[in-house]
Amino acid sequence: MPEHPFDQAVALTQVATADRLSRWRGATHSAYWNMVGPFGGITAATLLQAVLQHPERAGDPVSLTLTYAAPIREGDFEIRTHLVAATRSTQHWSVQLLQGADGEVAVNAIAMFAKRRDTWSACEAAMPEVAPAEQTPLQTVDAFPMAWLRRYSLRFLRGGLDDITTGPHSDSTSQLWVSDVPPRALDFTSLAAICDVFFPRIYLRRGAPLQAGTVSMNIYFHADAQSLTGVGADPVLSVARGVNFRRGFFDQAAEIWSQGGALLASTQQLVWYKN
Amino acid sequence: MPEHPFDQAVALTQVATADRLSRWRGATHSAYWNMVGPFGGITAATLLQAVLQHPERAGDPVSLTLTYAAPIREGDFEIRTHLVAATRSTQHWSVQLLQGADGEVAVNAIAMFAKRRDTWSACEAAMPEVAPAEQTPLQTVDAFPMAWLRRYSLRFLRGGLDDITTGPHSDSTSQLWVSDVPPRALDFTSLAAICDVFFPRIYLRRGAPLQAGTVSMNIYFHADAQSLTGVGADPVLSVARGVNFRRGFFDQAAEIWSQGGALLASTQQLVWYKN
Repeated sequence: MPEHPFDQAVALTQVATADRLSRWRGATHSAYWNMVGPFGGITAATLLQAVLQHPERAGDPVSLTLTYAAPIREGDFEIRTHLVAATRSTQHWSVQLLQGADGEVAVNAIAMFAKRRDTWSACEAAMPEVAPAEQTPLQTVDAFPMAWLRRYSLRFLRGGLDDITTGPHSDSTSQLWVSDVPPRALDFTSLAAICDVFFPRIYLRRGAPLQAGTVSMNIYFHADAQSLTGVGADPVLSVARGVNFRRGFFDQAAEIWSQGGALLASTQQLVWYKN
Repeated sequence: MPEHPFDQAVALTQVATADRLSRWRGATHSAYWNMVGPFGGITAATLLQAVLQHPERAGDPVSLTLTYAAPIREGDFEIRTHLVAATRSTQHWSVQLLQGADGEVAVNAIAMFAKRRDTWSACEAAMPEVAPAEQTPLQTVDAFPMAWLRRYSLRFLRGGLDDITTGPHSDSTSQLWVSDVPPRALDFTSLAAICDVFFPRIYLRRGAPLQAGTVSMNIYFHADAQSLTGVGADPVLSVARGVNFRRGFFDQAAEIWSQGGALLASTQQLVWYKN
């Protein structure tokens, strides 16, 4: 068994393959438990891991989109990967997480992988100018019951956990430095998980407890395998803001930046809420 | 046959249903042809239409994500809809477009539908202050061969078609008023199509012709059926900007606003490019 709890959590065993459909077995991990199910980020990472370790996988992930359909219970689950289309340089996958005797689908996802080429490149989005991670106080999470919070070092620059119970805010932006605990070199799976590290933006807007949960997450990977190696276990700057809160759902948009100023991923979520 | 070319283009006939998988037959429409295949927006609309007219469909679309896997050839295609999970208030769908004797998957998609509830609502994104549509000049598209451009009234406020051959721009933002030609009341399908009305942002960045095409599109629907009715056939303000251009892929983010200031949809794309 791998040593790092992250690697334990995303570990999968291939069960069977038939007609481009592969089945993988995994299990929830107590270290990444949220309130009534696993941290959504570890679930995203696990579905991505199934494709990454597929013998037919070619290229790097460029997009991953998941919709969360049902709560995931503690224990075993199955992941099904299906390579639905491929060219010489791209692959299109369907991925699902199923649980229970009836094979209920708890997560429905699609992903695209591609071989990268050298081209003209430019980043139009601007990395915010913020204090470096080592000058930013570490957030204490003792007051929160969610186990997964203890698997990250969170250093909030703005819009932190202390702001979600202090009344409404008109701006729901959060900026924070994030790294795995214990330290772990960033890869595609941990980057996917970090894309879900943001608490629902409505906590800041309302400034009071309410029910909310991610129902859809979209990730565009800008980093390739080589540029991730350069990040190593350094903290990444994670920035999120709310977009529109309307009739039970809102969306939030986020970026994950390396310390060196490279945009590693852009990501969006649709979040269900009740008030 | 419906009169409006849009309704003709998204028309589908149910072929068969077995075990929650339904098959639908449609065909490409010359009025929405792009360069070597249909306009990506009409394809997105057609996949959404398959779910919308499904007898088991409940609620409004809240998210739709498509990856474009292969060129769609002129002629017939099949759409397969699969209701993979449902609760009392949500539905999760897988949708694919297939073509050819071997049933090659050309589009791989997932969608989430939900019954909306009245809640606290607020829009954190700001609608740009721009001139009204009636004071904005109509873009002439005679110089462009793509048929689908003639199916929209495009009134550019910024970052228009005239700017894509005039050398590089550091900002790839476009703002334009968009409505269907001939006029047609907005619905979920036409809103999905409009989410793809933006040319690739790299055209503005590079200011010179190059190859580019959408490979993934994500849409969050903020409008519900009732609020769409209020928009009618009025033009909608469509705003897009590039995010990060790197090693063969870039992403762009966009919003679609009603004249009255309601955010109807937020949408993102990942676009392949070659230079």
